[in-house]
Amino acid sequence: MGTPLEAWHEIVRTRDGAALESLLDDDVIFESPVVHTPQLGKRVTSLYLRAALALLNNEKFRYDNEWPGPSSAVLEFVTEVDGITINGVDIISWNEAGKITHFKVMVRPLKAINILHQKMGELLAARSPV
Amino acid sequence: MGTPLEAWHEIVRTRDGAALESLLDDDVIFESPVVHTPQLGKRVTSLYLRAALALLNNEKFRYDNEWPGPSSAVLEFVTEVDGITINGVDIISWNEAGKITHFKVMVRPLKAINILHQKMGELLAARSPV
Repeated sequence: MGTPLEAWHEIVRTRDGAALESLLDDDVIFESPVVHTPQLGKRVTSLYLRAALALLNNEKFRYDNEWPGPSSAVLEFVTEVDGITINGVDIISWNEAGKITHFKVMVRPLKAINILHQKMGELLAARSPV
Repeated sequence: MGTPLEAWHEIVRTRDGAALESLLDDDVIFESPVVHTPQLGKRVTSLYLRAALALLNNEKFRYDNEWPGPSSAVLEFVTEVDGITINGVDIISWNEAGKITHFKVMVRPLKAINILHQKMGELLAARSPV
């Protein structure tokens, strides 16, 4: 296994849900582009990240730029959903065990947030255990 | 004069408009959190950055984190406007002459974009030459 960052890129390439689970710390925090309140824990973070990957990780998706630090990194991406360009960053932090402890996403412009809000809502409603 | 990044932090501390002008390349590009279309040139970028600083650079403003690269950096900030927490990133690129060539901003969550949209609109309408 490589660095957490390499593992993340591999998950984006392979869409491997089990690899995603094993990369997330049990107490990982997810912060969405839409909602202020952080989401706590592996179950809900995994749910959000799978929905986000299902929506954004299409044939238009690419990482454009990367700013790595010792225990965190910023990855800038561009993709397109329903003809709307979505430009965003993943801010990913990890611990010494190589597990992701914090995953934050921001996107621009306003149209991109709005479509993400709508589509993520639909996806999460369909996937959530009721 | 220090690095472009040090110069930027100094401008945020001092609110020195002339220093901002001299730090921007003539052909600098500004990309806002709200609008897709890039803004081109020093005049309009300076207008946007001054308005953004006037709005965001209040007593609650702080840079929380920084990921520097060789000719660009990501700076994460937190501030508050009208009781709404605004979390964002400045993505700043510069050239070999030490001038900023690209300035991109993203913010989260949706409430933060909405208030920024509204307040920046008011500020820019008041400041634009009519």
